[in-house]
Amino acid sequence: MTTPYWVQDSIFYQIFPDRFANGDKANDPVNVQPWGVKPTHLHYMGGDLQGITQKFNYLLDLGINAIYLNPIFHSTANHRYHTIDYFRIDPFLGSMNDFKALLNVAHNNNVRVILDGVFNHCGRGFFAFINVLENQEHSPYCDWFHIKNFPINAYGKGEAQDYLAWWGFRSLPKFNTDNQQTRKYLLDVARFWIDQGADGWRLDVPNEIDDDKFWAEFRDTVKSANPDSYLVGEIWTPDRRWVGETHFDGLMNYPFREAIIEFLTSDVLPVSEFANRIENLLNLYPKENVYAMYLPLGTHDTERLFSKMGNNLEKVKLAFLIQFAFPGAPAVYYGDEIGMQGGKDPESRGAFPWDDLESRTELHNWVKVLISLRKQLPVLRRGNYQRIFTDDRRHVFALARMLGDSSVLVAINASSTRRHVRFNVLDLNWGDGRIVRNLLGKEEYIVSEGRLAVSLPPWGGLWVA
Amino acid sequence: MTTPYWVQDSIFYQIFPDRFANGDKANDPVNVQPWGVKPTHLHYMGGDLQGITQKFNYLLDLGINAIYLNPIFHSTANHRYHTIDYFRIDPFLGSMNDFKALLNVAHNNNVRVILDGVFNHCGRGFFAFINVLENQEHSPYCDWFHIKNFPINAYGKGEAQDYLAWWGFRSLPKFNTDNQQTRKYLLDVARFWIDQGADGWRLDVPNEIDDDKFWAEFRDTVKSANPDSYLVGEIWTPDRRWVGETHFDGLMNYPFREAIIEFLTSDVLPVSEFANRIENLLNLYPKENVYAMYLPLGTHDTERLFSKMGNNLEKVKLAFLIQFAFPGAPAVYYGDEIGMQGGKDPESRGAFPWDDLESRTELHNWVKVLISLRKQLPVLRRGNYQRIFTDDRRHVFALARMLGDSSVLVAINASSTRRHVRFNVLDLNWGDGRIVRNLLGKEEYIVSEGRLAVSLPPWGGLWVA
Repeated sequence: MTTPYWVQDSIFYQIFPDRFANGDKANDPVNVQPWGVKPTHLHYMGGDLQGITQKFNYLLDLGINAIYLNPIFHSTANHRYHTIDYFRIDPFLGSMNDFKALLNVAHNNNVRVILDGVFNHCGRGFFAFINVLENQEHSPYCDWFHIKNFPINAYGKGEAQDYLAWWGFRSLPKFNTDNQQTRKYLLDVARFWIDQGADGWRLDVPNEIDDDKFWAEFRDTVKSANPDSYLVGEIWTPDRRWVGETHFDGLMNYPFREAIIEFLTSDVLPVSEFANRIENLLNLYPKENVYAMYLPLGTHDTERLFSKMGNNLEKVKLAFLIQFAFPGAPAVYYGDEIGMQGGKDPESRGAFPWDDLESRTELHNWVKVLISLRKQLPVLRRGNYQRIFTDDRRHVFALARMLGDSSVLVAINASSTRRHVRFNVLDLNWGDGRIVRNLLGKEEYIVSEGRLAVSLPPWGGLWVA
Repeated sequence: MTTPYWVQDSIFYQIFPDRFANGDKANDPVNVQPWGVKPTHLHYMGGDLQGITQKFNYLLDLGINAIYLNPIFHSTANHRYHTIDYFRIDPFLGSMNDFKALLNVAHNNNVRVILDGVFNHCGRGFFAFINVLENQEHSPYCDWFHIKNFPINAYGKGEAQDYLAWWGFRSLPKFNTDNQQTRKYLLDVARFWIDQGADGWRLDVPNEIDDDKFWAEFRDTVKSANPDSYLVGEIWTPDRRWVGETHFDGLMNYPFREAIIEFLTSDVLPVSEFANRIENLLNLYPKENVYAMYLPLGTHDTERLFSKMGNNLEKVKLAFLIQFAFPGAPAVYYGDEIGMQGGKDPESRGAFPWDDLESRTELHNWVKVLISLRKQLPVLRRGNYQRIFTDDRRHVFALARMLGDSSVLVAINASSTRRHVRFNVLDLNWGDGRIVRNLLGKEEYIVSEGRLAVSLPPWGGLWVA
């Protein structure tokens, strides 16, 4: 086993630090925006590390046991992907002490914390790039980047002409990871934060560092600092290359998210095709990596789940029902559990509405139940996956998770019509006369002639056991 | 007494870190220049903190007991006045551990270390300025600087148009120290390094922060961290404003240097005028500040003493003789004790010629004797100053230092002709028949009729006691 033992038992919560909670007004930017205004690319709302620590009871009540923090290092942007210092907490988020305090409360409550690692590029305010800007071809750091010609101009209009940059953005010069000094620097960063207590890294756009040896070294570095560290890559497409002994434990399973969204929002994806797509994702990777996948329904880089579902609460609940029944580590993007809305960045990075939780209890409770059941039932976390039923005409799908004697039947009606369905449950070893019930409701069913007859509400689903 | 007790007993050695000694080749820039090539504005020679630590025996043999280090914080330039991180040692100089090791060996040998504080401006790679460059008028840091209009352009040609900068250099944006956040940041820096063990600050261009309250706060901050810290301002002109309870303990006494150089290299400065000038400097300031002045004959900002003296060894020795007889803390710019040559910056910042010390022993030994005597004789450090004799026609000057029963007569011949002179020594309480001798040679003299007859070689001097 080379993936960390704990990931398949984890439920992640992704936090965009500027927008989750403001725990220390003293570190706010002077031009901090009021909490809850329409998010922009440029402004801060004042969220910080103390805010997360102070709201830890909320996270524990929700039930999550792992956190993925969007970048927290010193940066020039509210999203902090424009890193200027990889060894320092952004002052608007707090201090190293605040980070240690957060880790402390997390670890004392058996919650793990992984960080966002942006190693393909830096901000143009990063010291080595600054040195090139100052000294041009005389800089000792020229070879840290991919410079095409001097003098380089980092602040003009248009795409970067003189050096490689992420998507051509002058503000994000790409590292030359072939340079051993640069490599050492980045690996030192990777080790440093693990040594400080972080439980792993989410790697930003790792496919843009197209160098298997770099990632093998990266993995060695992190795992030698802590063998239980989790490495998860931001890979948007199904791609076997990025998992395994020389790469990552898991990937951000965006294709899984896309399949669910297409399944629940378009008329063109037949149930069997949906099943094929998600099962292909299970078959593409070694099993241990499948169980170490990070399963998002939304992130800082996507529309909000609620909006994506056309503000249809039933569909949102159904999406979570599927997500929490799948192998891997389900991940909740902060606020998706209470139905926060918004289009793509920056809209999807709104301030968490602490003063408006009472009107959002239905979804909130639903997610709490799913998390609680997933934590109670090892079969949902560690069980095998098996397809049970697909009906393209009626849009009904069923799968099972099975572990030893334990089985859960997951049934989904992806249509606006109530469906009455009989599933063959022989594979679940459920004998005739066995009484099972919907874990998410009160219905009881009896197995008869190797089959189970259930009624599925519109855009509804069951977890039966 | 508000100036630190130790300064008047100190002999400073000023080190330009890139050029003193390379102790760790592993931290050299990739394009490091060979040690000893002609210095340029752009290149590094690899000197570092470990180098100073490794050469500490040389410093102890020379006899100095205080070090003024040119800037050591993370910067984009070999002189490190373009600060990009005030809380970090420049990686080409080493690490915080290297700094602590240097402080350790220094303090264990009763050598104090003061740092160069550049608080008027930063490098344009400093995080707050970078943030303004990135976010322009939306940046939370706009008020850290003096921005005239947006967008600001930091990298074009010509003087800074959009913001105040030191001498108009775009690369050196001036801080707005009226902003309380900026002020707090700079004061935090000041305290941090004192807390790390530094023994004081040399303040770079402090007159450009034309704000007495700022400097009062600065002093309070530093002195509350360590009441024995030394504060010395880079003030080039005689100016009472900058010393005292709300400013600095001493100033870099450039006017003293200029007087000595003019006295020994031009024919137009009569001895009496020279005496007036240096005595005015003694009278301008409170006595405790006079004794806490930093007395340089050369620095990183001037021509080398040896070159300034027309490569005349006797004049160089005479200059040191005067310097070490004066109230205040004599300071040796690294290499001046072995006659390093060079015009203004960058020439005066050459690499210390460790492989060429044997040919330079005469001056080296001379300086060692002066230092040793100054350390042996409290009268030279703490004694009162008194003019004894001026002869404009023959260019002879004599002063005395007197402390209790102890006196030293300092006689100087600033001409190319041997002079026979009789000094009235009644003020020294030297009675007739008393035998005194030249501390710097072997001559003995007998006091007769209240006078002392001495012979002064061309461009030569005596310390008689």
